[in-house]
Amino acid sequence: MKIRAAELASMVEGQLDGNPDILIYTASKIEEAKEGSICFFANPKYEHFVYQTTASAILVNENFVPKQKINATLIRVKDVYQTVANLLSIFEQKTEMNFQIDPLAKIDPSATLGDQVSVGAFSVIGSGVKIGSGVTIYPQVYIDTNVQIGDHTIIFPGVRIHRNCIIGKNCVLNYNVIIGSEGFGFVPTENGSYKKIAQIGNVILGDEVEIGSNTCIDRGSMGSTTIGHGTKLDNLIQIAHNVQIGKNTVIAAQSGVAGSTKIGNNCQIGGQVGIVGHISIADGTRIQAQSGVASSVNVENSKLYGSPALDYTNYLRSYAEFKKLPELARSIREMVKTRQDF
Amino acid sequence: MKIRAAELASMVEGQLDGNPDILIYTASKIEEAKEGSICFFANPKYEHFVYQTTASAILVNENFVPKQKINATLIRVKDVYQTVANLLSIFEQKTEMNFQIDPLAKIDPSATLGDQVSVGAFSVIGSGVKIGSGVTIYPQVYIDTNVQIGDHTIIFPGVRIHRNCIIGKNCVLNYNVIIGSEGFGFVPTENGSYKKIAQIGNVILGDEVEIGSNTCIDRGSMGSTTIGHGTKLDNLIQIAHNVQIGKNTVIAAQSGVAGSTKIGNNCQIGGQVGIVGHISIADGTRIQAQSGVASSVNVENSKLYGSPALDYTNYLRSYAEFKKLPELARSIREMVKTRQDF
Amino acid sequence: MKIRAAELASMVEGQLDGNPDILIYTASKIEEAKEGSICFFANPKYEHFVYQTTASAILVNENFVPKQKINATLIRVKDVYQTVANLLSIFEQKTEMNFQIDPLAKIDPSATLGDQVSVGAFSVIGSGVKIGSGVTIYPQVYIDTNVQIGDHTIIFPGVRIHRNCIIGKNCVLNYNVIIGSEGFGFVPTENGSYKKIAQIGNVILGDEVEIGSNTCIDRGSMGSTTIGHGTKLDNLIQIAHNVQIGKNTVIAAQSGVAGSTKIGNNCQIGGQVGIVGHISIADGTRIQAQSGVASSVNVENSKLYGSPALDYTNYLRSYAEFKKLPELARSIREMVKTRQDF
Repeated sequence: MKIRAAELASMVEGQLDGNPDILIYTASKIEEAKEGSICFFANPKYEHFVYQTTASAILVNENFVPKQKINATLIRVKDVYQTVANLLSIFEQKTEMNFQIDPLAKIDPSATLGDQVSVGAFSVIGSGVKIGSGVTIYPQVYIDTNVQIGDHTIIFPGVRIHRNCIIGKNCVLNYNVIIGSEGFGFVPTENGSYKKIAQIGNVILGDEVEIGSNTCIDRGSMGSTTIGHGTKLDNLIQIAHNVQIGKNTVIAAQSGVAGSTKIGNNCQIGGQVGIVGHISIADGTRIQAQSGVASSVNVENSKLYGSPALDYTNYLRSYAEFKKLPELARSIREMVKTRQDF
Repeated sequence: MKIRAAELASMVEGQLDGNPDILIYTASKIEEAKEGSICFFANPKYEHFVYQTTASAILVNENFVPKQKINATLIRVKDVYQTVANLLSIFEQKTEMNFQIDPLAKIDPSATLGDQVSVGAFSVIGSGVKIGSGVTIYPQVYIDTNVQIGDHTIIFPGVRIHRNCIIGKNCVLNYNVIIGSEGFGFVPTENGSYKKIAQIGNVILGDEVEIGSNTCIDRGSMGSTTIGHGTKLDNLIQIAHNVQIGKNTVIAAQSGVAGSTKIGNNCQIGGQVGIVGHISIADGTRIQAQSGVASSVNVENSKLYGSPALDYTNYLRSYAEFKKLPELARSIREMVKTRQDF
Repeated sequence: MKIRAAELASMVEGQLDGNPDILIYTASKIEEAKEGSICFFANPKYEHFVYQTTASAILVNENFVPKQKINATLIRVKDVYQTVANLLSIFEQKTEMNFQIDPLAKIDPSATLGDQVSVGAFSVIGSGVKIGSGVTIYPQVYIDTNVQIGDHTIIFPGVRIHRNCIIGKNCVLNYNVIIGSEGFGFVPTENGSYKKIAQIGNVILGDEVEIGSNTCIDRGSMGSTTIGHGTKLDNLIQIAHNVQIGKNTVIAAQSGVAGSTKIGNNCQIGGQVGIVGHISIADGTRIQAQSGVASSVNVENSKLYGSPALDYTNYLRSYAEFKKLPELARSIREMVKTRQDF
């Protein structure tokens, strides 16, 4: 991939300020950028790099006024951060699967595949599976009986999808994701052993859902575990059976949600958060990393922290005093002693 | 799968109250149930659904007295929750592997397989492996040299079992489970680097053990990591080298147990719990989610919470005061000031 | 593997005290050791086993003076713990891959393989991949386009390596490790949905890096995520995009490091630790299990605990008072009441 600065400016709807013909091969961070790369500048504390860099081009906000001479070509845009997303996708290399079905894939004859579908080597596609158009299935994927996959979804190596699950359009399932793993459902018996509850449900992912590597989404015990349109999950997350997550919610790595909990739309959940089962989390809730949510959150746009989680600011205030507890305790003991001596 | 209500009642040893000939195709939750499905009712707060549902049948406790007219056929049983487990397994669809050895599996000629064994495509079975009768090995599984697998165990796609490990009868290893991963054993050297300690042991699972997706069980450094009869582990759990877990213990998702720790029988361990190495946890111990257990638990049936974990009730009492710390601290400071002014 | 005690003593540079001809087949823990095995004794609380064991040989410190008669042959060494690492590797069984390329592996013709490389069945090696000498690639591995792998690295079944990543020499990637998974990079848009930021960077592992099973290392958004020489990561760890970890740092299972954070050399990080993004952790920092590090650690060899993490000793002092909070609170309330009554 190489592109003239003028073309790049046009693609990101920016104004060019410098050499329109300089060639760009890749994008880099401003502190690492070299000739042939475009970098970006938005945070004022990095401004000195703007004057030092050997990058060929720099993406800057439209109102940026340099304080020194700049060697690089500038591309001025309305919002640097928004533009970076577009810029990087220009330089992204994708594995060309070329819409081929590898002869070493094992595809059941009853499966139906749309146009321009790729299936890699050593992948298994079961009976009754329905795959939309433009779907990419990398090598070593397992798709069980009667799964449905929407158009243009991308499935990376090592993904496993259990029978009857439904994946929307334009989804991304990263390496080793498990969709429809068995829910943890056991009833204790009189002799102390556990009897398994069959998990007969499925998982339904909306469109534009992205799931990070090694994340597990358990299928419903009865009915479905559902992940709404546009929701994004990071790596190593556990979503238990019959959880329902709304639209455009993001959850960071290593968090876990226990069974039958409902999470609303537009929530932001940090890493290593735990949420107990059978509760509801209102739309727009923000949960700080490592928090443990033990009861329903009914007020929208709440912000939580702690284990069990409290209001964010209250947790920080309590924690500030927790740090001073030894001296507070000493004061108390001295006063108690004084009073007793009295 | 379809079944007459009368037959279903007989299978779960219930009494039928309504139309014996109505056909049931699946099981559903009472709030989602439709014609052709059986749902269950046990929690009184859902009673209104009993009168509204269009389900064909409802499983209820034997002493249930309706307050209004019910359209559905009732099946009365002693214990609804216990019965649901049986009921769901009636409707569970299993992938029929048909006791076939896929020609695309790679099986070492020295491996021995019992009767009615299935092995899926792209699975690898190493030299000296012994597989019992009725074992199902799905596609894309890796079974290393000299592993032993007991009768009727089910191994899902992506499972990896390291050499010399022993799996009991009627076990379930869910997607991408790793049995016998390498323990984290390193000794620091004088120059600050780490020298690896070879991990020459194995893992032994008892009968009826179930392991959730993406869970790792490290092999013993010397000797074995052992999981007792009937113990159930959820997804994304870490069990380190030489851990010993007793019988009928359950551990929820994303918990971790460090090396050489012994956990007793009938323990219940919540999600995201951490347990340090080289300690013992007595039989029947219950540990609240996200707790961190830093020392041995010697009293049976203890209940713990917090990080480091305390007695459950004590933790909650302390945490209740933690929430009020800012006002407590203010009181202290005022009193200290008053006393100084005095 | 069987070996005469005299030979074994010579291999570990120890002095033999007993029968030089006794044959040793394996290594065991002293409490489990039987005839034919060598065990080790270093911790005085296990001394009684020295006199009871039926092990054929015992590794002891050179200055050990028995208090009773010992049946086993002793091998005296300078440092028992250091020697155990060598001893166990003598008895470690390795799967012999015999430097063969399995005919069921799919290797792109443009990939280059060094001498004595093994590639197992159902592995996929993409275009432009460069593999050094003596590399072992087990079955069911996925290596994407243009990956480079240094000499003598070992890659276990189920590992996935994304395009352009660079793996050093003598590394070990355990079962199902993911190198170069997609970073969690999204920008919110005006309508509440998220737009993906293409992740065009890679991962670079130094030499002698070991990564535990099911651990994910995200590739850089731009530039690289880097893991320094000799660093060891345990199982189920999350390393986000553009994290930089120094040399000889060890991280225990289930910890997570958020994006762009820099961790120094020789750090020791416990299990289930969370570290936020965009901070720096100084060399030699030690972080207690389950801690949450929310800000940079600038002082080398700091020791931290808590969430958010404090100085280790301060956290323990505060936590000691946290346990007593109910009685401290009662004292305060009594004093407040007394003062008001006054």
